Amino acid sequence: MERFQFYCPTKLVFGEGSVSQLRDLILDEYKKILLHYGGGSIKKSGLYDEIKNILKDLKCEVYELSGVEPNPKLSLVYEGVKLAKENDIDLILAVGGGSVIDSAKAIGIGAKYEGDVWDFYTGKAEVKESLPVGVVLTFPATGSESSTGSVITNEEGSHKLSVNSNIMRPKFAIMDPLLTLTLPDKQTFAGITDILSHVFERYFTNTKNVDLTDHLCEATMKTVIKNAYILNKDPKNIAARAEIMISGTIAHNGILGIGREDDWASHVIAHELSAFYGTTHGRSLGIIFPAWMKYVYKENIDRFVQFATNVFDVSVVNKTPEEIALEGINSFIAFLKDIGVPTSFSDEGLPTDNFETMAEKAVNGGTLGRFKKLTKEDVINIYNLAK
Amino acid sequence: MERFQFYCPTKLVFGEGSVSQLRDLILDEYKKILLHYGGGSIKKSGLYDEIKNILKDLKCEVYELSGVEPNPKLSLVYEGVKLAKENDIDLILAVGGGSVIDSAKAIGIGAKYEGDVWDFYTGKAEVKESLPVGVVLTFPATGSESSTGSVITNEEGSHKLSVNSNIMRPKFAIMDPLLTLTLPDKQTFAGITDILSHVFERYFTNTKNVDLTDHLCEATMKTVIKNAYILNKDPKNIAARAEIMISGTIAHNGILGIGREDDWASHVIAHELSAFYGTTHGRSLGIIFPAWMKYVYKENIDRFVQFATNVFDVSVVNKTPEEIALEGINSFIAFLKDIGVPTSFSDEGLPTDNFETMAEKAVNGGTLGRFKKLTKEDVINIYNLAK
Repeated sequence: MERFQFYCPTKLVFGEGSVSQLRDLILDEYKKILLHYGGGSIKKSGLYDEIKNILKDLKCEVYELSGVEPNPKLSLVYEGVKLAKENDIDLILAVGGGSVIDSAKAIGIGAKYEGDVWDFYTGKAEVKESLPVGVVLTFPATGSESSTGSVITNEEGSHKLSVNSNIMRPKFAIMDPLLTLTLPDKQTFAGITDILSHVFERYFTNTKNVDLTDHLCEATMKTVIKNAYILNKDPKNIAARAEIMISGTIAHNGILGIGREDDWASHVIAHELSAFYGTTHGRSLGIIFPAWMKYVYKENIDRFVQFATNVFDVSVVNKTPEEIALEGINSFIAFLKDIGVPTSFSDEGLPTDNFETMAEKAVNGGTLGRFKKLTKEDVINIYNLAK
Repeated sequence: MERFQFYCPTKLVFGEGSVSQLRDLILDEYKKILLHYGGGSIKKSGLYDEIKNILKDLKCEVYELSGVEPNPKLSLVYEGVKLAKENDIDLILAVGGGSVIDSAKAIGIGAKYEGDVWDFYTGKAEVKESLPVGVVLTFPATGSESSTGSVITNEEGSHKLSVNSNIMRPKFAIMDPLLTLTLPDKQTFAGITDILSHVFERYFTNTKNVDLTDHLCEATMKTVIKNAYILNKDPKNIAARAEIMISGTIAHNGILGIGREDDWASHVIAHELSAFYGTTHGRSLGIIFPAWMKYVYKENIDRFVQFATNVFDVSVVNKTPEEIALEGINSFIAFLKDIGVPTSFSDEGLPTDNFETMAEKAVNGGTLGRFKKLTKEDVINIYNLAK
């Protein structure tokens, strides 16, 4: 185990009907609120009215900024920062999924900074302060409701960059699994793939003596896979939706990664699919992770044997470690196919003639990952394996 | 899954040599510090000097209150409250195990309260504020380094009462597994039994649809058991000590219990062994838990089958659920025997003629637990099973 610090002060408020607890979370604490959300879905579902009524009862001054899109944009963040500064906002309330929350976090740090908020993303400035961010989560996937990170796309030059700081963890996250009932299946299962990927990036490590976090990772993966199968048959199963929702938080609040080296190559490699073809984040991870696994498993075959046996219950009788490892990877691929997530470029109908350029952008002159350090050539090989 | 709130803002600073990070945790934040500890062990180990030197370098004003004993006493808490109030203390630094931390938490809430700190323990007052408490952990067992609770004994009438509040969670916990190397084996394995018991109290539940926390509990139990066996052969194994230390925190910071009904009968039943005979807390849990399991397993045999198969890898082939459940319980008893923890009154050489009085005190006119509600008669039966 390596040394670590872990600090996650987000208050989780979980369960059916938990939106009503927004009142107690805001009461006496916040007065001027920037309500930040995407489009019409929260209006259609009634969530928007429920929240507005609570804020009205509390006599809060409410400002609104809607229009957050997947891959949230810097231009909207600038609007939010301006709004927050001009109106002395004391809470940014993000209602939505990861994109809305990431955008709210960006506004939070921008509002407390004299310079350009993009400085944090380019590494020119370090996060020292943020306006408080609160969350009402409608889509479990990115874990942003209690994570340190925010990913923002600068439309000029289409740079997609991230910043991480404990200061950016939301103050509270209201998580009502009922709010996820209206998600299209395609989004549900892309989100589930994203959740699993957050565990993979931590699980596949060469750090020794990490029994506790190994088993916590396996616990989360088993839970996600079991409940994904339940939702695949019965999308309205609220108990399964609850399991997925809380698993999404645990998968990415950092606890599964304490004391271990993490990887993150696959996330970067998959990002290029979104950048080039607009592929949904979760689906691009479904395409890349199986190929990454096939490409790197020989680096540490024991780890992939453990994955196969402890997550997919692969039997070890009369098999070589390599056979067991590959059976684990194939079980994961079969799982993705079962839940309708693409596992190759062709599954998603994507072109396969930009691998060189995509790989060059991905490695950006360096290498990727830590389980196995990947060069540009390695990344091209992985894209080819994912054809 | 049931509704829940979870909020754990303790910063964990973990790893070999992490005591040096005390400097950054205190720097610019705290100036007047009450150093709270037990006896000479931290002086012998050099930890006391290391901490004093850091505080001296930072030009902190340091007040000291030592003498915390197992089952920390209200009289010492009163002394601490007086010291803290008179000297405008701004941080209580607890250096030790659960008793020292519990005592520090009591001083923390007492110092911010006009009345008698015992009011919080008797339920006459509600915790609204606390002085910050910081921890340097030397003994992994109670999880108090990031938990909500404090248990204090009022010598007048020997009442042992507890209070719980998120406000009482320590600000930070420095956890260096090297500090646990000097613990006597008896204490190490009593601590391990305490850690497992914290998981049991949450794991044995009748709440349905708790896949994630079930598996997280199992992950923690498997880790503790595996690494206890390692320490049993090789007490100086630092990797195993690290696993036990972080498991102790996870076992009792509340995350394993989110969304599920917990039990806590065994803790109360075991407390009477400490009250009557001064039995170490962890060892009294070793005596009571096997008896409790044997007494209650029929309430929810599936849960004990899951325990047997997922924690102790009991094979299910050609066995009835009852046989599997009992094999799981017996595996746990065998584990305790292997690590030298008593599993009966006779193992510990305790009298068996006070069961009636002990049970009466334990149930205190009501019932205990939730997995199976236990009356006084039930508690007597459990004591008899533990003979």
